[in-house]
Amino acid sequence: MNPSIRPTQTQTHTPQGVQNREDYLVLEEPLEIRLAHGAGKSRKRFTVAVTMRTPGHDEDLALGFLFTEGIIAKADAVAEIRIPEENVILLELAPDIYVDSERLVRHFYTTSSCGVCGKTSLEAVQTVNCYYPVHGRPQISPELMYGLPEKLRAAQLAFASTGGLHATGLFDGTGNLLFLREDIGRHNALDKVLGAALRAGAPLPFRDYIVLVSGRAGFELVQKATMAGIPVLAAVGAPSSLSVELAEAGNMTLIGFLRGERFNIYAWPERITP
Amino acid sequence: MNPSIRPTQTQTHTPQGVQNREDYLVLEEPLEIRLAHGAGKSRKRFTVAVTMRTPGHDEDLALGFLFTEGIIAKADAVAEIRIPEENVILLELAPDIYVDSERLVRHFYTTSSCGVCGKTSLEAVQTVNCYYPVHGRPQISPELMYGLPEKLRAAQLAFASTGGLHATGLFDGTGNLLFLREDIGRHNALDKVLGAALRAGAPLPFRDYIVLVSGRAGFELVQKATMAGIPVLAAVGAPSSLSVELAEAGNMTLIGFLRGERFNIYAWPERITP
Repeated sequence: MNPSIRPTQTQTHTPQGVQNREDYLVLEEPLEIRLAHGAGKSRKRFTVAVTMRTPGHDEDLALGFLFTEGIIAKADAVAEIRIPEENVILLELAPDIYVDSERLVRHFYTTSSCGVCGKTSLEAVQTVNCYYPVHGRPQISPELMYGLPEKLRAAQLAFASTGGLHATGLFDGTGNLLFLREDIGRHNALDKVLGAALRAGAPLPFRDYIVLVSGRAGFELVQKATMAGIPVLAAVGAPSSLSVELAEAGNMTLIGFLRGERFNIYAWPERITP
Repeated sequence: MNPSIRPTQTQTHTPQGVQNREDYLVLEEPLEIRLAHGAGKSRKRFTVAVTMRTPGHDEDLALGFLFTEGIIAKADAVAEIRIPEENVILLELAPDIYVDSERLVRHFYTTSSCGVCGKTSLEAVQTVNCYYPVHGRPQISPELMYGLPEKLRAAQLAFASTGGLHATGLFDGTGNLLFLREDIGRHNALDKVLGAALRAGAPLPFRDYIVLVSGRAGFELVQKATMAGIPVLAAVGAPSSLSVELAEAGNMTLIGFLRGERFNIYAWPERITP
């Protein structure tokens, strides 16, 4: 059984009548992300966030989230990842890593990138310590870009996905799919992919990678990708005005409407060969 | 010019070559929501949230947000709404309304319903003071439901929408569209619709209304609709597992995949006539 879905009973109405049948729901459950830091008797645990996510690859999600939110700057800041109970994940920070929990509460209140309660102005984003892609690197052909969505779809099928989730793929500069992750939240799917790469030991910044997202490219996705130095972010859907502004400011090539043999470039076209 | 979009220059790549052309981007900008409360010299202002939204109907959004997040319990808790500068909205609370700003910071940190940093467990939701729909009311025919998406689409065209935004409609029990609002964030579109109804003086709870959302029905939408006592929430897309659990617990009829002459009921089918 796929851990991302569960069966349910549903009533289907059509002009031909009512039919009771079995259907599947995408799982959406809270994940509480806890940190432990400090040494000896002064070691403390605290909750850094509770996020709604589709279960699966929680370690990737938690590590990616800490990184893209600027709480940790490298993968080995986390010494150990444990799952003390269902829907809770505990990240034991390395002894030399300290996090100001009070500041963090304020940070999430005023500066998180999420939709409801968050960071937001371009100025606020740009004070965050993130990696900027190098100009002109990598160089990618349009033909390579055309092929990415099909590679993502094929991998989703191979991994027995529900298809009803947002998918994000991390590709190298020659178009090989390195990691695919799915989630009901598009920001989570991106955090999972970046966390998976970090856990696999990929060196930061991610200067020669391409990220492909199955939906739209909202501001928060560009922001998270910028933290890792991703030079090319492509979306099957549309970017927003703020996405384009942030990509322009951050040297990121932003591609939208990548469907069939067609795409639009909204920022930094220099990385795509004519 | 539609205030929800702005023109941009884009490069379109196809096998036939590269074309520079004008395109349109959906606007995504931060809105800082400030509250003022207290009397005389002790009157204080503070920022309650910064949310990414598509500009337009900001008053509806701010009032709806305060209500669905449980910060105010009625529309006349807000004496006046002002826009002191671009992307800032100030809600002057009535003299008898007090909000604990310190508690609120903690509330958003641990209990907001958004994707990244938020509330989450079903238990947390159910401690919130919200309205529960009355059993069996309203009674709605399948034919009425079949007609709602087309009414929403027709109204979007009439209001010169971009079509690239999430739309939410508030209908009465006979299928009349009362309010239509759009936003890049689906939670904002719902807050705008509920805020518009509150500002128009619709009495709480909203016992005989139907809400239709153009996308999927995630947990946060069910949660927000529950705050207002909405008895029927319908989505063009899929619900999540947690949406269904929350709708079941809250007496809400939850409908998904409402497309053409067809829909599925995931919770409380009793309000739909056979």
